[in-house]
Amino acid sequence: MSRQSNRTTDSKKMNSELFTLTYGALVTQLCKDYENDEEVNKQLDKMGYNIGVRLIEDFLSRSSIGRCQDFRETADVIAKVAFKMYLGITPSVTNWSPAGDEFSLILENNPLVDFVELPDNHNTLVYSNLLCGVLRGALEMVQMAVDVKFAQDTLRGDNVTEIRMKFIKRIEENLPARLSHMRNTVRG
Amino acid sequence: MSRQSNRTTDSKKMNSELFTLTYGALVTQLCKDYENDEEVNKQLDKMGYNIGVRLIEDFLSRSSIGRCQDFRETADVIAKVAFKMYLGITPSVTNWSPAGDEFSLILENNPLVDFVELPDNHNTLVYSNLLCGVLRGALEMVQMAVDVKFAQDTLRGDNVTEIRMKFIKRIEENLPARLSHMRNTVRG
Repeated sequence: MSRQSNRTTDSKKMNSELFTLTYGALVTQLCKDYENDEEVNKQLDKMGYNIGVRLIEDFLSRSSIGRCQDFRETADVIAKVAFKMYLGITPSVTNWSPAGDEFSLILENNPLVDFVELPDNHNTLVYSNLLCGVLRGALEMVQMAVDVKFAQDTLRGDNVTEIRMKFIKRIEENLPARLSHMRNTVRG
Repeated sequence: MSRQSNRTTDSKKMNSELFTLTYGALVTQLCKDYENDEEVNKQLDKMGYNIGVRLIEDFLSRSSIGRCQDFRETADVIAKVAFKMYLGITPSVTNWSPAGDEFSLILENNPLVDFVELPDNHNTLVYSNLLCGVLRGALEMVQMAVDVKFAQDTLRGDNVTEIRMKFIKRIEENLPARLSHMRNTVRG
């Protein structure tokens, strides 16, 4: 679908359950469409990326947050502002690498997996992988190339859900910083 | 995906944009998967139905609403409680049929279509058709068979979005009224 920025400026606060179940329908559909979990994981990441590059503009305008000074500030903004805004949860930021280029988001409750249990034949499915793509896409639009992946997942029996984020590089900026212009030029 | 009732009881309030974009990804995927709009519309309705039969239990426990006395009360609960809870909007209830068995929900802002514009080759797509399925599925679980469809849609150039709901019949109840028991027996 093509999209226009004709959205209303007022935000609609909603409970997460309809989203959770709709996301489940999306994952189920992809499991029908693709041969194996790895392909589904890739598709979820790709869809998430496309969502992220759009969502960032909404996020910046709603949050009024400017450029982050460093990766630590980025981590805090993601956890305390972005996750709170779009998923209603606040993950903790932890497990920093000594170089300060890697950290983990620990989600005690992942709303995407409420009600969900992985069937036995999908034990390599990264059910919530859309989130990795969203983070990757959104950060790319603010000139940060990052690697994002699930390190732990309660769906696979881990105690918590852990998203691991690694800073790769700052993307060269040779364009006006207005996202509305960048949108048509930066591609994944 | 199979689901278990292991959800946390606290509700997560979130902004609608991530949901909106994720829903867009779902519709886009279905447009790739199915040959024509009619098939996509059917799939959306079917997915919505499956969501509705699950969502009703969450709705009843959150809202503490008991059995509605008549279709008018049902209409009010849907508009003022359910839409508000899961989509953050309150449609108006209008256009009652003289017999009181049909009404319309008028959505001034449909969060599902923020940013969306239908491509020319999808002019019979009922983009938000999932909602009809959700309503049909949820109401079936409280013994009401209803017909639900979009009568107007801002995406197709109408001034408002109108969902038309028609009461068909009360489904015979020969089971204990506990939804948790009904779940395994009522099917679509």
